[in-house]
Amino acid sequence: MGETTLYRMRPLSLKRSRITGGFWAERMEVNRKATLPIEYEQCKKTGRIDAWKLEWKPGQPNPPHIFWGSDSGKWIEAVAYSLAAHPDKELERLADGVIDLIEKAQQPDGYLNIHFTVVEPEKRWTNLRDCHELYGAGHLIEAAVAYYEATGKRKLLDVLCRYADHIDRTFGPNEGQKRGYCGHEEIELALVRLYYATGEKRYLDLARYFIDERGRQPHYFDIEARQRGDDPKKYRWASYDYNQSHAPVREQSTAEGHAVRAGYLYSGMASVAAETGDRELLKACQRLWKNITLRRMYIHGGIGSSRFGERFSYDYDLPNEEAYAETCAAIALVFFAHRMLQTDPDARYADVMERALYNGVISGVSLDGKQFFYDNVLAVDPPYHKFSGQKSPQRQDWFGCACCPPNLARLLASLPSYVYSQGKDGAWIHLYATGRGEFEIAGQAVAIEQRTDYPWKEKVLLTVAPEKPAVFSVALRIPGWCRGAKLAVNGKPIKASAVMKKGYAIVRREWKAGDRVELTLPMPVERIEAHPRVRHDAGRIALQRGPIVYCLEEMDNGKNLNDLVLPRRAKLRVKVNRRLFGGIPVITAKGRRRDAARWGENLYRPVSSRTKSAPIKAVPYFAWANRGLGEMLVWLRCG
Amino acid sequence: MGETTLYRMRPLSLKRSRITGGFWAERMEVNRKATLPIEYEQCKKTGRIDAWKLEWKPGQPNPPHIFWGSDSGKWIEAVAYSLAAHPDKELERLADGVIDLIEKAQQPDGYLNIHFTVVEPEKRWTNLRDCHELYGAGHLIEAAVAYYEATGKRKLLDVLCRYADHIDRTFGPNEGQKRGYCGHEEIELALVRLYYATGEKRYLDLARYFIDERGRQPHYFDIEARQRGDDPKKYRWASYDYNQSHAPVREQSTAEGHAVRAGYLYSGMASVAAETGDRELLKACQRLWKNITLRRMYIHGGIGSSRFGERFSYDYDLPNEEAYAETCAAIALVFFAHRMLQTDPDARYADVMERALYNGVISGVSLDGKQFFYDNVLAVDPPYHKFSGQKSPQRQDWFGCACCPPNLARLLASLPSYVYSQGKDGAWIHLYATGRGEFEIAGQAVAIEQRTDYPWKEKVLLTVAPEKPAVFSVALRIPGWCRGAKLAVNGKPIKASAVMKKGYAIVRREWKAGDRVELTLPMPVERIEAHPRVRHDAGRIALQRGPIVYCLEEMDNGKNLNDLVLPRRAKLRVKVNRRLFGGIPVITAKGRRRDAARWGENLYRPVSSRTKSAPIKAVPYFAWANRGLGEMLVWLRCG
Repeated sequence: MGETTLYRMRPLSLKRSRITGGFWAERMEVNRKATLPIEYEQCKKTGRIDAWKLEWKPGQPNPPHIFWGSDSGKWIEAVAYSLAAHPDKELERLADGVIDLIEKAQQPDGYLNIHFTVVEPEKRWTNLRDCHELYGAGHLIEAAVAYYEATGKRKLLDVLCRYADHIDRTFGPNEGQKRGYCGHEEIELALVRLYYATGEKRYLDLARYFIDERGRQPHYFDIEARQRGDDPKKYRWASYDYNQSHAPVREQSTAEGHAVRAGYLYSGMASVAAETGDRELLKACQRLWKNITLRRMYIHGGIGSSRFGERFSYDYDLPNEEAYAETCAAIALVFFAHRMLQTDPDARYADVMERALYNGVISGVSLDGKQFFYDNVLAVDPPYHKFSGQKSPQRQDWFGCACCPPNLARLLASLPSYVYSQGKDGAWIHLYATGRGEFEIAGQAVAIEQRTDYPWKEKVLLTVAPEKPAVFSVALRIPGWCRGAKLAVNGKPIKASAVMKKGYAIVRREWKAGDRVELTLPMPVERIEAHPRVRHDAGRIALQRGPIVYCLEEMDNGKNLNDLVLPRRAKLRVKVNRRLFGGIPVITAKGRRRDAARWGENLYRPVSSRTKSAPIKAVPYFAWANRGLGEMLVWLRCG
Repeated sequence: MGETTLYRMRPLSLKRSRITGGFWAERMEVNRKATLPIEYEQCKKTGRIDAWKLEWKPGQPNPPHIFWGSDSGKWIEAVAYSLAAHPDKELERLADGVIDLIEKAQQPDGYLNIHFTVVEPEKRWTNLRDCHELYGAGHLIEAAVAYYEATGKRKLLDVLCRYADHIDRTFGPNEGQKRGYCGHEEIELALVRLYYATGEKRYLDLARYFIDERGRQPHYFDIEARQRGDDPKKYRWASYDYNQSHAPVREQSTAEGHAVRAGYLYSGMASVAAETGDRELLKACQRLWKNITLRRMYIHGGIGSSRFGERFSYDYDLPNEEAYAETCAAIALVFFAHRMLQTDPDARYADVMERALYNGVISGVSLDGKQFFYDNVLAVDPPYHKFSGQKSPQRQDWFGCACCPPNLARLLASLPSYVYSQGKDGAWIHLYATGRGEFEIAGQAVAIEQRTDYPWKEKVLLTVAPEKPAVFSVALRIPGWCRGAKLAVNGKPIKASAVMKKGYAIVRREWKAGDRVELTLPMPVERIEAHPRVRHDAGRIALQRGPIVYCLEEMDNGKNLNDLVLPRRAKLRVKVNRRLFGGIPVITAKGRRRDAARWGENLYRPVSSRTKSAPIKAVPYFAWANRGLGEMLVWLRCG
């Protein structure tokens, strides 16, 4: 935290933060034991690993795709995080094997994209707009940094430094350099991480260059297209807003285009702004953040509502059955939120981060860790996708474009780094999860232990343990969904509202080893409504308890979920049944519905409105589609 | 009506039926004065007319498309109907000019498709599945029959008889013939009309052959594809249900695939069944009719909900914003309904015919007759189509695939033939419109005059005028939407329910010249609900008055139409304002909505449900999008 940066805090690294029990520990365990091995197998089976051997020859089947390298990258990154928390010889051996292949695939000048080495070598760096070369580099850089930090092994880091140096020589504003940037952002945030890992400021400068060059005129993608002999006007996506290069990034104020690209760009912008003290760039991030979270985000934290371009559409356009909400986009939103939070300690960032994590992110993977959703819809009638072009309403083993599964794996494996931040003069607690954070505060080590059954139960117990008594602050996020939080230190109540600052209860006092903080976060089931301009949610509510968004499934509620109505005064009960998802709380209520069986055969008739009582049972959204195919609905009609 | 047919009645021809005032007269006048000339201009401008000169040479731009001939055909057919009611020298001169070109384009063997004469002559009859050759022939045949009947001129009829003879030689079950049928049905119903016009039974036989051959194994489209060297499995639409050849037509019981093709096929089936006394085939028609009208039809009479394949999807799947509901498909449903009605005097057929005509058919053309909708959605948020792949929410001047505009023109011009049928022993009145029907009953001429302001006003006055007093029946349709219809003859009330048979009040008595029938069809505004399984309409109602379905437009109700609620007890008022659509009745009510301005900036929040009063104004659906771009909504939330 140099004087010139905008950082108010920094995340605790995985060496200093542990999740040892509860909700996320279970998800991380499934990730390590099921998802990571499966993803390796899929990469192996589909040729993504062996492609690094550069043995593919023209005319052979299955040519290495332009973004295959990114799959290896994200998988190695995920393994690295997992190793940081949980040594695993077999995973490490597999990762070392892939890293050896990557090292050998590097070209003498440092270049490292499989496709443009063996399939179209003459086209290297000729189509940044569409070809993901720098994107692939970014994911490999993130992998290298993570693997180095987790294992201390430098091999991949050295390889990627050489590649980054090659990129640094190739791109820039100077004579003889290409004045380009990637059509799929990612390298910007990766280069900042490489700077942190190596201390080499030129990587930070290159990240800043990529960000500031974006969208300038004359437009690089025009120039580049003409150089290829293409007409820039024939761009498949018509407008450069698809890749956020329709204007210089500092002038952008609405989130446009491909949502994953946007989220990665904004994350990179936030990191560069924070690190370089660039308040103007941070302001652009804040504008974009507001546009996303106040106008273009699903209740489950998904973003990018349109599958036509996997993109943002327009304010308040959040269709449920037609939703896209790519898993990777929700993950990118977590990245963006986490970065914004470090410069602006406002619980709104952590609220969104939590909303996405517990809902639209982990819905992307089955409870057994073996199957994946690319898109995360909020309503399903199973046959509809066959006639609407929507993706399958069942999770899949893998995808041709397999960005989401390893993205999920790396996020889940790195979750402990999202829980705490260390500020200048205290500890920040953003998420609640059983585990431990180790801080350096006031020149000494301070450990904070958490014990909680969050998000199912409302109590969080924290033990603060400085080596010796000292005055500092412990900032506890009071979630935006929570009303009436209670706080006590060593059994003595503290009026939370008196110490609240931007959503954090900041307890400043002399702490001594063994001090106990008890946080109570009441979790009644809430009926949530959406802004009146969200046309698809009008007259509907979503059920939310704590950070968990619920949904109805056909197997619990019968067919025609849209015909169910939750009366305004219907009591909502929370029930636990060990046989259902191992005892995750479900919500029940007495609803009403029309009697389809007595309706007769007419398709239309004068309204009669007669309804009958119908039980309603809602399960957490993230757990849907784990019990077979059926209807699903998040936004329930309310009476 | 031979002994072997299933006909119970026959439509009055355009020579015997006139519409002289009121709603349809106005629409027909706009059709004649604006639409028909514009369509000629568009056909001329886009090369569709001059293409008949066969002057196109390889390498030249704008090669004649496989279905261009059908546009000329439908336009000539429309002109013919228009001439039948209203001589128009200029239109007749233009039509004669096109007919001269068509005659000269005919090949020595009778063949008559422009594309396969000048662009790909070697591919004639090699791809019936995709290439619309017989479809084009069908439309030209319909044109020829209509023009002959309207003007007595035989030129086009003779040309098309030669073409039909060529087709009859080419296709069939005999040695040396192709055992094929068209991927886009149309010729089946056209051949029956050609049989009626010429008395040549082989045309009827050929129609029956095409119908019965469809879907048989070994499948002709497989055979044909292999003959072309194509893999039948690589069919773009995956399944032959797209063109209703997935099974023999007699075995089909759900309406599948491309909705226009389906509607034309079923119309052809109904005609062949009726004419040949084929009860099994008629039963298949009845099953398909039920499936469509009880499970797959929009409230505006549109069918084919999915734009992916312009097709039927599955039971009760009727999305509003994502609707397709092609104008041509609603027209095809009118054809099908009209044919079914002649064999089965049940008002349900006429009810559907009327529903489509007043709503989802004429919504396809602007009130000034100059612009057209291809699809007829039931909800619009204007920016959405840019991000959803939906078509424009504004009517267009023309389309590359221009099937809908001339289809509308021919239907509107022929409307008088849908009003009356002549039965063995009486007159049938299906639709209410000011005008006159001339029947032959009991060996004498019987004229029936109608005077009405239907569908806006509830009175219909009829004068029955036989040459001399005679006993026969006059059957008056009591629309399915109507409750409490009142009937009087010469001022003396008749209990309608006592003479009702399948939705028709059948008044059998001795009629004498000047007898007056007064029919009163009460038209309160109705709130209509959809079947509980129509998930998109749950909790919503549509406003309907008489046969007219209403909708809300943004210019009358402000933005966020989905946030408006019509309370259960809100009074619905009918108002007429001369300045709005020339005095078409609109519906007003006091609704409620949330106050978006006071909502604050959050996107989601715990429900508060506070609403404020908001006026609601609904206009006829067919009149929407005539006052600029804005939101539109048919299914309104109800409290």
